[in-house]
Amino acid sequence: MTTQQLIQQIKTKQSFLCIGLDVDLTKIPQHLLATEDPIFEFNKAIIDATHDLCVSYKPNTAFYEAYGIKGWMSLQKTIQYINEKYPEQFTIADAKRGDIGNTSAMYAKAFFEDLQFDSVTVAPYMGKDSVEPFLAFEGKHTILLALTSNEGAYDFQTLPLEGKELYQKVLETSKSWKNSQNLMYVVGATKAEFFKEIRKIVPDSFLLVPGVGAQGGSLQEVCQYGMNQNIGLLINSSRGIIYASNGEDFALRAREEALKLQQEMQEIIKNIK
Amino acid sequence: MTTQQLIQQIKTKQSFLCIGLDVDLTKIPQHLLATEDPIFEFNKAIIDATHDLCVSYKPNTAFYEAYGIKGWMSLQKTIQYINEKYPEQFTIADAKRGDIGNTSAMYAKAFFEDLQFDSVTVAPYMGKDSVEPFLAFEGKHTILLALTSNEGAYDFQTLPLEGKELYQKVLETSKSWKNSQNLMYVVGATKAEFFKEIRKIVPDSFLLVPGVGAQGGSLQEVCQYGMNQNIGLLINSSRGIIYASNGEDFALRAREEALKLQQEMQEIIKNIK
Repeated sequence: MTTQQLIQQIKTKQSFLCIGLDVDLTKIPQHLLATEDPIFEFNKAIIDATHDLCVSYKPNTAFYEAYGIKGWMSLQKTIQYINEKYPEQFTIADAKRGDIGNTSAMYAKAFFEDLQFDSVTVAPYMGKDSVEPFLAFEGKHTILLALTSNEGAYDFQTLPLEGKELYQKVLETSKSWKNSQNLMYVVGATKAEFFKEIRKIVPDSFLLVPGVGAQGGSLQEVCQYGMNQNIGLLINSSRGIIYASNGEDFALRAREEALKLQQEMQEIIKNIK
Repeated sequence: MTTQQLIQQIKTKQSFLCIGLDVDLTKIPQHLLATEDPIFEFNKAIIDATHDLCVSYKPNTAFYEAYGIKGWMSLQKTIQYINEKYPEQFTIADAKRGDIGNTSAMYAKAFFEDLQFDSVTVAPYMGKDSVEPFLAFEGKHTILLALTSNEGAYDFQTLPLEGKELYQKVLETSKSWKNSQNLMYVVGATKAEFFKEIRKIVPDSFLLVPGVGAQGGSLQEVCQYGMNQNIGLLINSSRGIIYASNGEDFALRAREEALKLQQEMQEIIKNIK
């Protein structure tokens, strides 16, 4: 999917919501556990109930790998289902991969070719040659960790070096990499005050923003400092939507939560016009 | 496996060799492609031919994920084979994972409980709460990326901050994390001159050292600066051993290459006594 197609989706749906499909078998409705593939059945119901309210789905690979081959099969079925039934959705493999060049190329193959995701999240620690193999795929997007939403973000990402902080250096340096037009960045909503500085470095890039809701970030603040002329934000919510209920009404309740966020987003989009 | 058991293995085998099982279907002997699971058949032959010469096997997960579910099945069969037939081997899932706390816990479950690896490599960028869920597993080891073997290591890892370089800060900070006794570190052999500084910060920790051989690192230099009283090193070789031949003699030739390294290691161990 091209960035232009993503922007068009956002305009059409008046939404820049991404729903995180982080499926934990201990948290989903118990009646689904009797089905052959509870993770997929859960995802399918959530997706069918919310697809018109969001522009993106983001399974976090950890939640699938934890269940071994069965989990990996659920992930494959989920992405196939989205690609077939809702091809307009921007799909994100939240995998936080990254390795030396020839190895990163294998990860890129896994997520872009085998699983057919539109994008994958990548960690920056190993530098240029660990990220460029992902960037080489045309029509695919690499979402680089810049400033994450967790407490540990302050351990290294905000350390000062030569008048800058590490995450700023990551943003700046990444702009010089080959095919950097295929980059997006992860910036946590819990750090809204940082968006102003970040937009000075990457004014035009899309930012994937976790941390609204369960982790305490504010949608209004993120939008105030983080939006650009194309919106330029994908706001992720996982637990707040998918675990709104663990009863038989889970999909309906997920829709209600997604709708609240979509309406809030529509209001924000209207006000910036 | 405990660290003491690993040290005992090293003494018994007079080897601190780790063999990287990075299986690329385009590089393995063509006659294996006719088998039902070429990746597993390849690994099985390599493992049977080398197990007495090395103390550790390290599949890099990228090479398995690239082949989707079939690849994940090959990975599972490989680790099961090692754990059943050669339980003395220290197994490393070279996965370079890391995410926010509850998500890292799912990765830990994937590699320590579902796949039953002894250890997993983890990226430090997201800080303390992204690593501690791995450290919580008793008898398991978390191998943190410190200074990697690739060119991109110089993009961020060696940036100066407050009189130190980032990788030094990672080493220092990680020592304060809960259950830090379960930490080991990745340090590339291509940067032998750095080992002296690294040993000042983590004198007792095991270091996993990729980059000897194909990537140009020197075993002698790494040992000169990196060894401690328990050896404290696991030297990884992947391509130099497993792709020594792509003919029917591949396992035999892999053994020859592993033997060369083991003999060099035996000599080094003898000289430090």
